[in-house]
Amino acid sequence: MKNSSTQTATVITPEELLKHWQGHRGLTRRVIEAFPEKEFFEHSIGGMRTFAEITMELLGIAAPGIKEIVTGETAELKEELDHQNKKKNILKAWDETTKAIDEYFPKIKEEDFHRKIKSFGQYEGTVLSSILYFIDNEIHHRGQGYVYLRSLNIEPPFFWER
Amino acid sequence: MKNSSTQTATVITPEELLKHWQGHRGLTRRVIEAFPEKEFFEHSIGGMRTFAEITMELLGIAAPGIKEIVTGETAELKEELDHQNKKKNILKAWDETTKAIDEYFPKIKEEDFHRKIKSFGQYEGTVLSSILYFIDNEIHHRGQGYVYLRSLNIEPPFFWER
Repeated sequence: MKNSSTQTATVITPEELLKHWQGHRGLTRRVIEAFPEKEFFEHSIGGMRTFAEITMELLGIAAPGIKEIVTGETAELKEELDHQNKKKNILKAWDETTKAIDEYFPKIKEEDFHRKIKSFGQYEGTVLSSILYFIDNEIHHRGQGYVYLRSLNIEPPFFWER
Repeated sequence: MKNSSTQTATVITPEELLKHWQGHRGLTRRVIEAFPEKEFFEHSIGGMRTFAEITMELLGIAAPGIKEIVTGETAELKEELDHQNKKKNILKAWDETTKAIDEYFPKIKEEDFHRKIKSFGQYEGTVLSSILYFIDNEIHHRGQGYVYLRSLNIEPPFFWER
């Protein structure tokens, strides 16, 4: 706390929110890595999507969502990727997204976190609520990936290691 | 934003963090409700815990964790409850927890969010990182509950409805 006039700043800073998200993204990357190549693209439970499809949703949201916040240009929600059934192509896109987030996130002005926006031109919220949604959505779907891995008799990475 | 000296306050306020958490908790409550009585206590995938056991972990963390932050008295991690195999007993504990969080959370001083603590006497972090962990852990496990429901051919509540 620098001084009493900025004390509410101590709840969470933009840098902490970015670090928190990238910590989660690092864990999701390890969950992707934990899947065998074949099962990543084919395994599912109860008619749900494969973890490859879920991952493509996450990729479709993260970088385009942040870029949209920074540039103000409406992003298109695209949940597909020419992965050629190779996990390494998905991981490459994952790492490019990591860099894009690191590049764009710091450009969000602190006074903008409560600005009202429509993510992907349609989801109403604030900059903050949208970013929290991106993160929560990733945690939610990754939790599903944990069940997929367990059902394949594979030990997932520890949830608390970021 | 009240004035420029408090602009970093606009990232997230304690009130917003509380509302965010309780929004998630409301969704988790609906996931509990969606389970048939028997399957709530018995169904699992890949050797994982039942959703009743997972819920008891969440109950063991939330109110005791927040009380510990406010009072400074070390909390004991207790993941059991005398539920007598009745979902209504778990839901009752859930609602009591909701009230306890609403009572204790506002007592956290804003300047305390970056204070270093050991949750449950052992998990090192700050007040903020601990609360984010409580929330993330709930989202993570609830995501598992979604797979359990889908595998039982039950439609879970919408993730985005809080």
